[in-house]
Amino acid sequence: MPRERVTLRDVARLAGVHPGTASRALNAATRSLVNSETAQRVLEAALTLDFRPNPVARSLKTRRSDTVGVLIPDLTNPLFPPIVRGIEDHLAARGYVALIGNTDNDDQREMRVFEGMRSRQVDGFILATARRRHPLLLRAAEDELAVVLVNRVVDSHAFPSASVDDARGSGLAVAHLAGLGHRRLAHLGGPQALSTGVGRYQGFLAGMETAGLEVDPALVAFADGFSQQEGARRCRDLLRVSPRCTAVVVANDLLALGCYAALAEAGLRCPEDVSIVGFNDMPFIDRVHPPLTSVAFSHYRIGAEAARLVLERIADRHAPVTATFLQPELVVRQSTAPPPRGG
Amino acid sequence: MPRERVTLRDVARLAGVHPGTASRALNAATRSLVNSETAQRVLEAALTLDFRPNPVARSLKTRRSDTVGVLIPDLTNPLFPPIVRGIEDHLAARGYVALIGNTDNDDQREMRVFEGMRSRQVDGFILATARRRHPLLLRAAEDELAVVLVNRVVDSHAFPSASVDDARGSGLAVAHLAGLGHRRLAHLGGPQALSTGVGRYQGFLAGMETAGLEVDPALVAFADGFSQQEGARRCRDLLRVSPRCTAVVVANDLLALGCYAALAEAGLRCPEDVSIVGFNDMPFIDRVHPPLTSVAFSHYRIGAEAARLVLERIADRHAPVTATFLQPELVVRQSTAPPPRGG
Repeated sequence: MPRERVTLRDVARLAGVHPGTASRALNAATRSLVNSETAQRVLEAALTLDFRPNPVARSLKTRRSDTVGVLIPDLTNPLFPPIVRGIEDHLAARGYVALIGNTDNDDQREMRVFEGMRSRQVDGFILATARRRHPLLLRAAEDELAVVLVNRVVDSHAFPSASVDDARGSGLAVAHLAGLGHRRLAHLGGPQALSTGVGRYQGFLAGMETAGLEVDPALVAFADGFSQQEGARRCRDLLRVSPRCTAVVVANDLLALGCYAALAEAGLRCPEDVSIVGFNDMPFIDRVHPPLTSVAFSHYRIGAEAARLVLERIADRHAPVTATFLQPELVVRQSTAPPPRGG
Repeated sequence: MPRERVTLRDVARLAGVHPGTASRALNAATRSLVNSETAQRVLEAALTLDFRPNPVARSLKTRRSDTVGVLIPDLTNPLFPPIVRGIEDHLAARGYVALIGNTDNDDQREMRVFEGMRSRQVDGFILATARRRHPLLLRAAEDELAVVLVNRVVDSHAFPSASVDDARGSGLAVAHLAGLGHRRLAHLGGPQALSTGVGRYQGFLAGMETAGLEVDPALVAFADGFSQQEGARRCRDLLRVSPRCTAVVVANDLLALGCYAALAEAGLRCPEDVSIVGFNDMPFIDRVHPPLTSVAFSHYRIGAEAARLVLERIADRHAPVTATFLQPELVVRQSTAPPPRGG
């Protein structure tokens, strides 16, 4: 039997304030407009009366739902759970909830999920799906939606973003390998339609230049996607080039796992014959054989940062656009060693 | 510049039907009440006019939001992403979206997230957080909410659920080890407040009885949670018991990874000295060293099944309660071998 509904008016009466003031005090986004003692009194009154705001009714009136839509390519890619967790933690602490949609990098599916969320009047979007040029984003820009990018960025700087300094990450990998004495380095890159693919490739080139090493174009290959299968396929191609590379700077850990498979097929050992460096330091990559040397950064933190940026954007659609780049570090494990003699 | 809003009335007029009929045809849950040709005509008219239903307005009227709340302990536990993916895929294909909340097995946080979703008028809940006795569920039952359990079940049979046959899974592990010649088997169990902990323990006991082996109570330990740390801690205790066990049936892969650490500390090899069997066959567990023998089932499928059940429940709150148990299988890898001589 539902009890009689407590209204905003009841809360305002108990707190001794105008209902408009009570409303502002009860909404996290507008609370700062109210004197802090008053806000506290209203919140206490709401607690006393067990008042529950009805966000659906409020969203009709204010066109806000305290909900953020999150689009990711695929939650079962181990990269994304910590990002989503960071987003959800940050939002939950501020009374927001996250709607989650997987797109499988399929434009049709992405558009469907996006429109489905939009029609539920989400206040903003966090996209982990951005390509460097992305029709969905053009549409979002035209409609002045609050959109923040996470992990990836786009060519234009129209959207706030939270990601890692991809170029620096690959640069660290090259510096580590050059320091071990490698001279013949290959790059197994990601798709060049994605900022992560481009940034990590550019970092490889810059790192090689800094180390005074020459890039052999035959030793650069790009995967069509970040998967183990693509890693194995492209690594097989790289291993056919003579003289053989002694190390591969790989744009992603899943690709690196594919390299392990290609090396095993070719009867080559890692790291004795070929060193491998991955990117992302994904969960459990320290437990594979050999434990992978990888470029690490906190995926949880870029998630939390993206959530912070989207709330900032929701509060002020015309705030300056911020791009946050986390600084990565290299975690050295057992997949890298000096090159073989004569290598 | 937003164009003028297309209304339900416009769609009904173009399709030549009553607005009530158009409304029913446009809602997936009520579409079957309309003649299928009529439904198709209405949907085509809606496409032609680019009509977008406003779920927020509709949810105020119907108190439905075409949204399902999903509560999980922690998305960064590798078990849950495939479950959530299965849920989201099934829901998305039917026009529903998923709200995600992490609870960290913290009652306070769970209640906050639950209430936050409820106030957004979600149509139902899928909980991966159930303990065998769970206050939140009592409350949900009183309020006649559509609630479905995934992965875990509760002692009462009041809620539909999708999970694996836990007891059979452990039974398969015991049968495998007994077949290899092991006689002194240990069980590293999960928390006994969770159905997964109890079911896997009961399956161990039943499997031992079937194999004609005796259970040494000193060789049974229960972890406080499903973590690597707990696995290492409890496995250390088990290894102190003399004579030593030659195999451990472990209730979860993360616990099993903890066992690997404890074995290494004690200077013991897996599988030469002690065999280990895990449970869940989590992603990348085939890449650890040694690749883990584990009880496998499709987490994606129990997610999809839970989504199916919750939509069934939303459509009819008084439908009979269904509990689906997937049959697991054992994936044998390199963490199990015959016992050492004299073992």
